Amino acid sequence: MEITFFGTSAGLPTKERHTQSIALSLEPYETDIWLFDVGEATQHQILHHSIKLGKISHIFITHMHGDHIFGLPGVLTSRSFQGGDSKPLTVVGPVGIKAFVEQNLALTHSHLNYPLHIIEINQSIDLSFNQFQVKVRPLNHGVPCFGYRVEAPSTPGKLDVDKLKALGIQPGPLYQQIKTQDTFEFEGRIYDASPFKGPNKQGPVVSIFGDTKPCESQFILAENADVIVHESTYIEGDKTRANSYHHSHIDDVLQLLSAANVKHGLLTHLSNRYTIEDIAQIEKDIKSKTPVSFQFVRDYTSYSF
Amino acid sequence: MEITFFGTSAGLPTKERHTQSIALSLEPYETDIWLFDVGEATQHQILHHSIKLGKISHIFITHMHGDHIFGLPGVLTSRSFQGGDSKPLTVVGPVGIKAFVEQNLALTHSHLNYPLHIIEINQSIDLSFNQFQVKVRPLNHGVPCFGYRVEAPSTPGKLDVDKLKALGIQPGPLYQQIKTQDTFEFEGRIYDASPFKGPNKQGPVVSIFGDTKPCESQFILAENADVIVHESTYIEGDKTRANSYHHSHIDDVLQLLSAANVKHGLLTHLSNRYTIEDIAQIEKDIKSKTPVSFQFVRDYTSYSF
Repeated sequence: MEITFFGTSAGLPTKERHTQSIALSLEPYETDIWLFDVGEATQHQILHHSIKLGKISHIFITHMHGDHIFGLPGVLTSRSFQGGDSKPLTVVGPVGIKAFVEQNLALTHSHLNYPLHIIEINQSIDLSFNQFQVKVRPLNHGVPCFGYRVEAPSTPGKLDVDKLKALGIQPGPLYQQIKTQDTFEFEGRIYDASPFKGPNKQGPVVSIFGDTKPCESQFILAENADVIVHESTYIEGDKTRANSYHHSHIDDVLQLLSAANVKHGLLTHLSNRYTIEDIAQIEKDIKSKTPVSFQFVRDYTSYSF
Repeated sequence: MEITFFGTSAGLPTKERHTQSIALSLEPYETDIWLFDVGEATQHQILHHSIKLGKISHIFITHMHGDHIFGLPGVLTSRSFQGGDSKPLTVVGPVGIKAFVEQNLALTHSHLNYPLHIIEINQSIDLSFNQFQVKVRPLNHGVPCFGYRVEAPSTPGKLDVDKLKALGIQPGPLYQQIKTQDTFEFEGRIYDASPFKGPNKQGPVVSIFGDTKPCESQFILAENADVIVHESTYIEGDKTRANSYHHSHIDDVLQLLSAANVKHGLLTHLSNRYTIEDIAQIEKDIKSKTPVSFQFVRDYTSYSF
């Protein structure tokens, strides 16, 4: 799978960084794209990328602040003209997202040419879209705000070919059946497939956080993830200030990455006060002092896992 | 005065052109900026220009289509952080603009730190902001849509110095009084000032149109203007199609410029199908065939008058 950042600034865009939006490519499991948050000008950023609006099947909104959703009406309406024709789209977000979408469309006389489903969330919930599991948990940001833990499907364990051959089963179509099903039939007898293959292998896990100060559900979302996307609005100075604004300081995020045993952290939503040069220098300094695997991202940073 | 274009595409942004937004600098009359329409990412475009959001005193919306207003919530909220502190802002637009602004602000938990006044228009109206007159007239675009004719203040006519000296009035503070007032006093007698100066000189006139197919009020708005900003969604081919979508074809606009005796036309809102190169070539071809003064504009084109 692959994550691409279309906006990495906080609150306001800067000359170098747009406000929040993240694309998750589900390849090789599915060809769809999922979008997380849609800051203003997300559709403009996408114009300069190979992703097409019509490929987006789901949009997840972490919270209703403008720097996370002001680009949503534009993405929804432009999608009608860029391959979205008839392909359904699901929007998941906090209570209020339905009114936001419907009122913006109605007041601007907009008509979509595809079915739009809106799911409003007001508490912890476990969702399932095709083969993907999505755990949604509330964060602590002063307004309703959620994190999304996305678990890719498991893949069947490796076949024990020696064991199968010993039973007289030669490579062929039956192997695929044994790999993907619980039982199989051979020479008139039904076998339990599990002794002939390794345990299922969990697909990659990625957690994408909305804005938050440290809170308990962060650990549930992040635990043992391959990668998490987390805000790090303040990357220097005193962390009391960050938390008083319901935001995270870099120290909070490094602690979470370590405590939750996360393989890699992609840190975004850096305050608009920082230039690209500031960020590169601060990243270098922090990396010299911690073994935790992380990076500060910028617009169009992409990460495969 | 000066006009700057932040977006010149129609319907959808392209890689080269954003959706609609136009800034009008009122210098030398006032230091304020007026904005006409606010397509998505207008605040991003402004970041790369010397204009500051805090200098914007009025925003005029021609109509409620997304390519003309999806950037409005972002401009309003970001203005709180970019010099807009306490300086009032007036938004003028069709009925629905108040709900659009208020619902977007409320649903995104946004609070402005300056007074916001919203004026909704549902018919022809003549407005006056400081010394400027603004004539608002309805156009024909399938949805309520308006054009704005902005008339800069008149400046006093030139003094007839010879006539004043003949009366015994030498250059001094009294000259300024004669220039700016209807009467003046000299040696105990009250004089009518008008015989001692030329007629008032009308300030520049600019008309900014919303989307429209040809209609009667275009002539009222455009007549004898120094410059008009007009949509020209279709710049080639058959004009029947343009008009059937309630849009203008280049032939319509050239005819208007000529019939209304407009000094110069700035043509924008060109269909997103056209590249910058297409536009340059078509402009060259048309200019070789007409004496009408016009230009197709692109993002950041600026025009002084």
